[in-house]
Amino acid sequence: MTYTVAVSGASGYAGGEILRLLAAHPDIEIRTVTAHSNAGQPLIQHQPHLRSLAHLTLQDTTPEVLAGHDIVFLALPHGQSGQYTDALGAVPLVIDAGADHRLTSKDSWDSFYGGEFHEPWAYGVPELPVNGTKQRENLVGATRIAAPGCNASTVSLSLAPGVASGVIDPGDIVSVLAVGPSGAGKSLKTNLLGSEILGTANPYAVGGTHRHIPEIRQALAAASGPSTGSGTQIEPSIRISFTPVLVPMSRGILATSTARIVEGVTDAQIREAWESAYAGETFVQLLPEGQFPRTADVLGANTALIGLAIDRAANRVTVVTAVDNLVKGTAGAAIQSMNIALGLPEDRALSVNGVAP
Amino acid sequence: MTYTVAVSGASGYAGGEILRLLAAHPDIEIRTVTAHSNAGQPLIQHQPHLRSLAHLTLQDTTPEVLAGHDIVFLALPHGQSGQYTDALGAVPLVIDAGADHRLTSKDSWDSFYGGEFHEPWAYGVPELPVNGTKQRENLVGATRIAAPGCNASTVSLSLAPGVASGVIDPGDIVSVLAVGPSGAGKSLKTNLLGSEILGTANPYAVGGTHRHIPEIRQALAAASGPSTGSGTQIEPSIRISFTPVLVPMSRGILATSTARIVEGVTDAQIREAWESAYAGETFVQLLPEGQFPRTADVLGANTALIGLAIDRAANRVTVVTAVDNLVKGTAGAAIQSMNIALGLPEDRALSVNGVAP
Amino acid sequence: MTYTVAVSGASGYAGGEILRLLAAHPDIEIRTVTAHSNAGQPLIQHQPHLRSLAHLTLQDTTPEVLAGHDIVFLALPHGQSGQYTDALGAVPLVIDAGADHRLTSKDSWDSFYGGEFHEPWAYGVPELPVNGTKQRENLVGATRIAAPGCNASTVSLSLAPGVASGVIDPGDIVSVLAVGPSGAGKSLKTNLLGSEILGTANPYAVGGTHRHIPEIRQALAAASGPSTGSGTQIEPSIRISFTPVLVPMSRGILATSTARIVEGVTDAQIREAWESAYAGETFVQLLPEGQFPRTADVLGANTALIGLAIDRAANRVTVVTAVDNLVKGTAGAAIQSMNIALGLPEDRALSVNGVAP
Amino acid sequence: MTYTVAVSGASGYAGGEILRLLAAHPDIEIRTVTAHSNAGQPLIQHQPHLRSLAHLTLQDTTPEVLAGHDIVFLALPHGQSGQYTDALGAVPLVIDAGADHRLTSKDSWDSFYGGEFHEPWAYGVPELPVNGTKQRENLVGATRIAAPGCNASTVSLSLAPGVASGVIDPGDIVSVLAVGPSGAGKSLKTNLLGSEILGTANPYAVGGTHRHIPEIRQALAAASGPSTGSGTQIEPSIRISFTPVLVPMSRGILATSTARIVEGVTDAQIREAWESAYAGETFVQLLPEGQFPRTADVLGANTALIGLAIDRAANRVTVVTAVDNLVKGTAGAAIQSMNIALGLPEDRALSVNGVAP
Repeated sequence: MTYTVAVSGASGYAGGEILRLLAAHPDIEIRTVTAHSNAGQPLIQHQPHLRSLAHLTLQDTTPEVLAGHDIVFLALPHGQSGQYTDALGAVPLVIDAGADHRLTSKDSWDSFYGGEFHEPWAYGVPELPVNGTKQRENLVGATRIAAPGCNASTVSLSLAPGVASGVIDPGDIVSVLAVGPSGAGKSLKTNLLGSEILGTANPYAVGGTHRHIPEIRQALAAASGPSTGSGTQIEPSIRISFTPVLVPMSRGILATSTARIVEGVTDAQIREAWESAYAGETFVQLLPEGQFPRTADVLGANTALIGLAIDRAANRVTVVTAVDNLVKGTAGAAIQSMNIALGLPEDRALSVNGVAP
Repeated sequence: MTYTVAVSGASGYAGGEILRLLAAHPDIEIRTVTAHSNAGQPLIQHQPHLRSLAHLTLQDTTPEVLAGHDIVFLALPHGQSGQYTDALGAVPLVIDAGADHRLTSKDSWDSFYGGEFHEPWAYGVPELPVNGTKQRENLVGATRIAAPGCNASTVSLSLAPGVASGVIDPGDIVSVLAVGPSGAGKSLKTNLLGSEILGTANPYAVGGTHRHIPEIRQALAAASGPSTGSGTQIEPSIRISFTPVLVPMSRGILATSTARIVEGVTDAQIREAWESAYAGETFVQLLPEGQFPRTADVLGANTALIGLAIDRAANRVTVVTAVDNLVKGTAGAAIQSMNIALGLPEDRALSVNGVAP
Repeated sequence: MTYTVAVSGASGYAGGEILRLLAAHPDIEIRTVTAHSNAGQPLIQHQPHLRSLAHLTLQDTTPEVLAGHDIVFLALPHGQSGQYTDALGAVPLVIDAGADHRLTSKDSWDSFYGGEFHEPWAYGVPELPVNGTKQRENLVGATRIAAPGCNASTVSLSLAPGVASGVIDPGDIVSVLAVGPSGAGKSLKTNLLGSEILGTANPYAVGGTHRHIPEIRQALAAASGPSTGSGTQIEPSIRISFTPVLVPMSRGILATSTARIVEGVTDAQIREAWESAYAGETFVQLLPEGQFPRTADVLGANTALIGLAIDRAANRVTVVTAVDNLVKGTAGAAIQSMNIALGLPEDRALSVNGVAP
Repeated sequence: MTYTVAVSGASGYAGGEILRLLAAHPDIEIRTVTAHSNAGQPLIQHQPHLRSLAHLTLQDTTPEVLAGHDIVFLALPHGQSGQYTDALGAVPLVIDAGADHRLTSKDSWDSFYGGEFHEPWAYGVPELPVNGTKQRENLVGATRIAAPGCNASTVSLSLAPGVASGVIDPGDIVSVLAVGPSGAGKSLKTNLLGSEILGTANPYAVGGTHRHIPEIRQALAAASGPSTGSGTQIEPSIRISFTPVLVPMSRGILATSTARIVEGVTDAQIREAWESAYAGETFVQLLPEGQFPRTADVLGANTALIGLAIDRAANRVTVVTAVDNLVKGTAGAAIQSMNIALGLPEDRALSVNGVAP
């Protein structure tokens, strides 16, 4: 069968990438695209690379316009998806690319986002180890899915095997990410201008203020085993120093994460943790020893490539993970999750190969 | 008086930057430039931006050509400077931009470089806290100076105040650096091609193998107080996880360094450590709370800009430092050290202002 | 049926892109990949983005290894394909991504390339107007195909409609191209280093020396009507000033071409020339009046986007065309031509949508 | 003596570059910096690279604040400088970096800018050939100076020698420019976002609509000899096709200009035209035959580097000129003109050497 789809936020980067991937999906008919201030304009004016969708016009983002489709993608600014939840009650599958339905802890939401708290939906990172199984299990047949934060899923995939297996200390984690500006969307801010991005590296949200931190802690807590608390408390034992650095590439995340090695653990045990976690996975691949990924290797692809080093002199594991923030970090994760929810082949319309150089 | 100068390795990036800065130095006459395979060619063919030096021709790099100047700069590949030491014995001031005379530990040299070990020279990072004073003291009147490694001096300046003051644990340090490819020189390697650098982030020397690690450990050990050992042993208590990431900017280092906060230390004590270390320094500046530097801010400048955050949730200090690898990281450090050695104003021919955007 | 394929030059950029596209082609089995100095190594070591081909090992590029496939792609340095012609006589379809079989004029070959001249093959730019029809006609059932030069096909597609229709003066053409360095391949040359490419624009082959000039003149001569000469003479009436400029983007060609407007021609006639030439074409699209393309719009896509302006004050037409040099400029053109030759749907495995931002 | 200076528009790119250069000028005291919406904030917040000016606070841009200085720089959006003319009547030297005082033709102003027309000031391109002499003559002792448009002065310097000497046809000129986004200022526009600039080439103002076109025509008309008209008419014989292309470098203009060679002119005559025009000039240099400039060669420098090729097959001269749009294109031109007006050494505080790589 063919599923009809509506995509909101279609003039933005996340919405555009969802459309790019859906346009090649044989089971999908893109029927409706919506926007806010750009409503009424041709989609192609805002997404000039989507030639096959040149016939579409942006409609207003309203519950009425979005309802009546088999699947609705919400690619709206954080805090704006929640308002559509009730109105889209009859839509069989809703996938939110925003943050509104990611966090299980109201406290974390209040601290890092604020505004109304919404219930968590199935988290769209299928390969994530969760309490002895994989997050994939929770996506089969799901009707409401929260696509992950791009930085969050990258770091979570990097470290979850080590946390789950107990070979690294979850209380001593450091992640530094080189990220492209497309993750910040099309917001008109001076620091996102080309002149400010070209030829320079620019840190932001330094010192523990980035909104993806609670999402990472939540994912790593879930990986580490059955929650001992109420289900809305993040394990306090997980401590992460997290610093993103804007660098001059339009897309991509290269996350360098390190964590202290637990005493007595062998090199073989460490490597085995990651190998077993991702054995058989198509879109999350551990590279052979001594190899590390570049973001170019995954540009346009739904692949997370992971390189692992054991640094005994520093007593730390170093995990370097490359992801395309718009694909595996957002739109690809959304569509992979959609495929799982619908019972389609998980890799449909998703490429494992990057576009390089 | 005017000092006559010879610069070897003048067709490379470090040599070119030394020449760019010296060309504006009122006390210097650039008399001789030398190269290896490019000898006999006009300098301008290899440094087309150095218009004021268009009259110079590259000579062969030999002891005879270099001797007979007041000052000789060696900007040669690592391991090649040492051979000139004896032959340049009569030269009043020799400054080595290579690694040959940086390390005090023969063991470290053997582990990370190999080949003949050469005696350490005065280390060219004047602002570095050293055992209660500054490295500047060791440069006054110096006749042999080792310019620092660019990554090493960036990280050392970032953390030395914390180590020296005892507010951070030197045994739990993580540094991740976004670096431009000019630090790797003009080597013809596939991974340094423009097509491989553009639009991508690329980690290298992951897992504790980078050659600047012993230099950092040495500097932090020196900062932390009187060496208890023989002078050639690096304090074993200093452990650092160090990962450089190539990003698409020609110049610049943005080092994100974090370290565990020592128990019981207050926020005020932490900030005071950095403030007092660099109070009054022209070229190493601590930014006000909440501000962090970009590499663009120091492009072409001899300035290291440092931003400091205290992340109690992660129990770590985060220090972000921006440096132009070719200026403060190499050539500017060399000339600043030269100014000190000669008794000239320390900032002569060095700009504190960057070229941005 | 499934066609078996061998790709030579598989460790280079053109070879890699052919493989990236073929990997998604349902009618193709990539059986053999070959290289020269990299033979014996895993393909993935040189093309780390081609995860789905991680099982392939580079073999030596010899006629024996290449023979025995249904299709052979030659992605070799210019002048090296010709030697395989005889040995591959039994291969049903050979597609050369090099220049060896593009030129019909031995004089042009001698002037711009030199070395042995080889017979011209069917030129792989299906949409090109040729003497009242399209080049597509010449590709149906072809067994030997020459993929075009990326700059040449971009400029030829830009101007052929105007030349064919007689609205522009073929004797007064100027083309200036912004091009990414991947067009130059993986050659280890100083001027292709990342440090030399980042943050700068760099002209090359200025003043009429670029090798794609005769290819453009040949295509425009073919567009303009029946050749009056021997078939190996380029129409002397076609004069083009052609200047490529390297800019810091890994892929892409943005060709700005202008030509003098023939006296008495109306604006409507001019626009009609391009509109009718490309009406119904999937991969060559004329944008609406007042719109001009960016290379980002076609990154990874097989699309040439063309914007047209009529500048009466300057008495010239300005045509701006965006192409991905590795796709529509090379590998995509090769596969599109292959599809035509084999009677497959012309757009199979080729995307009209770009990857942006 | 020391001149006191006020700089308006100090939070923008042009204002920032004026300040960067003035900060190193021994005869200048930067007393006042002004802005519009950013008034009241520290300058360093908007120009974090200007460390030596960290003590300055942005004041409101009013005639009262600007008056009372020896020199006032206006770095305001086009159309806003004119309003200050009367109020600054008592200021000995006013230099406008905007377009308000560049054009001599009210018709051109009306066509390309609109709004109130203001009288032309001395045009700040000292090296420009003007009717047998140089524009420098008009700047000696000047009290009101219009700094040039960056694209305009680059193209004018490229072609004026050919027009003045009669070796090229001024009626058949084509210029295509690769330009960095800093020329567009800090305007918050979607097409100037980093995500839209990185990895792509983007044409704009295609087809004869760019505002610098009348400025170029005016300069080339002035170069070609005594005006036959009223002084406000641009020579109608000058026709130029002008296309700027945004490329991913923060600064720089690489202008590729071609013009038809006048019949009967020899190669020697052509080269001689440019050689004699710029002989002895420090900041406008003709490169030796066969050499062409990169923008990196002039980054941060006040230098225009010109490469010249004679393409007999195309019957055109090709002139490639590299300029830093913010220095020689704007701020450097302003300060060079100021030096001339004040009788200071023309090159004071201006570097001929670029910052590369």
